[in-house]
Amino acid sequence: MKKRWLSLYVENDSGILAKVSGLFAGKGYNLESLTVGPTEDRTISRMTISLLGDDATFEQIKKQLNRMVGIIKVIDMTNIGIRSREVLLIKVTCSRKEEVDEVFRMAQAYQMTVAEYNGGDILLECMNRDKHNQRIIEQFRRFKNIEIVRSGSAAIEWDVRPRL
Amino acid sequence: MKKRWLSLYVENDSGILAKVSGLFAGKGYNLESLTVGPTEDRTISRMTISLLGDDATFEQIKKQLNRMVGIIKVIDMTNIGIRSREVLLIKVTCSRKEEVDEVFRMAQAYQMTVAEYNGGDILLECMNRDKHNQRIIEQFRRFKNIEIVRSGSAAIEWDVRPRL
Repeated sequence: MKKRWLSLYVENDSGILAKVSGLFAGKGYNLESLTVGPTEDRTISRMTISLLGDDATFEQIKKQLNRMVGIIKVIDMTNIGIRSREVLLIKVTCSRKEEVDEVFRMAQAYQMTVAEYNGGDILLECMNRDKHNQRIIEQFRRFKNIEIVRSGSAAIEWDVRPRL
Repeated sequence: MKKRWLSLYVENDSGILAKVSGLFAGKGYNLESLTVGPTEDRTISRMTISLLGDDATFEQIKKQLNRMVGIIKVIDMTNIGIRSREVLLIKVTCSRKEEVDEVFRMAQAYQMTVAEYNGGDILLECMNRDKHNQRIIEQFRRFKNIEIVRSGSAAIEWDVRPRL
């Protein structure tokens, strides 16, 4: 089981998300994340999918995606350079002053922005690779009253070799 | 047609994304965005959905979501205070030095981070409200060779009234 990255160019149509997610569900594949947004062309959306899977099933899924109506292009980004970023929002409801202090220290330690603070509750936000967000969340588990929302990863190809 | 926000707590299961997106597709609803990620509880994911729709259909959709197996909680965030954030990645392939200069000025003007730069191509990233990202993209349309990836919005409730 290896981590895979797919980027799909799809038609901006209401059924395409259901079709793509249905394909993975039919194979019993639980996606790590799936995000979708419009591109520079308003009629086309771009989907980023990350998942864990074996070679054989993954090759089969790529073939089926390539044949699917509404899918314009399938890019397998598993073995190429990419940059991926995910939004992480964490709300901590604090019951004591010491807890507030500790959350502010955590924000500093993990370079999170304090987006909102009302004297007791704190809303933190950041944008990182999914693995880094995962590490941050593990650290926040020691606070009793937290709420977490993540966007899933958006990823783009970036060839790390310098341009000559 | 009004902009709506939904936050769903769902079981971390491979079929749930297909079921939820299938419900919207069945009604011919094109979602503005849908994002999903794990929460502080590993068995539960949280979904953020933004869409445009009329009152009647939206009420019907909420009822159907509430009845759906695998959905734990449906929060209508349309009329409450929220904070929403979306990743925007823009890659510009430049053919002239003047274009490079202009992209760097744009990054400064719109407070985007220059994530990568190889002397010709530039990769920019930022995290904003979806409307603000939309405005940035409009400005970047004048560059010929661009590639855009967006994550869609992650949103969390935040009561803007100060805590007493």
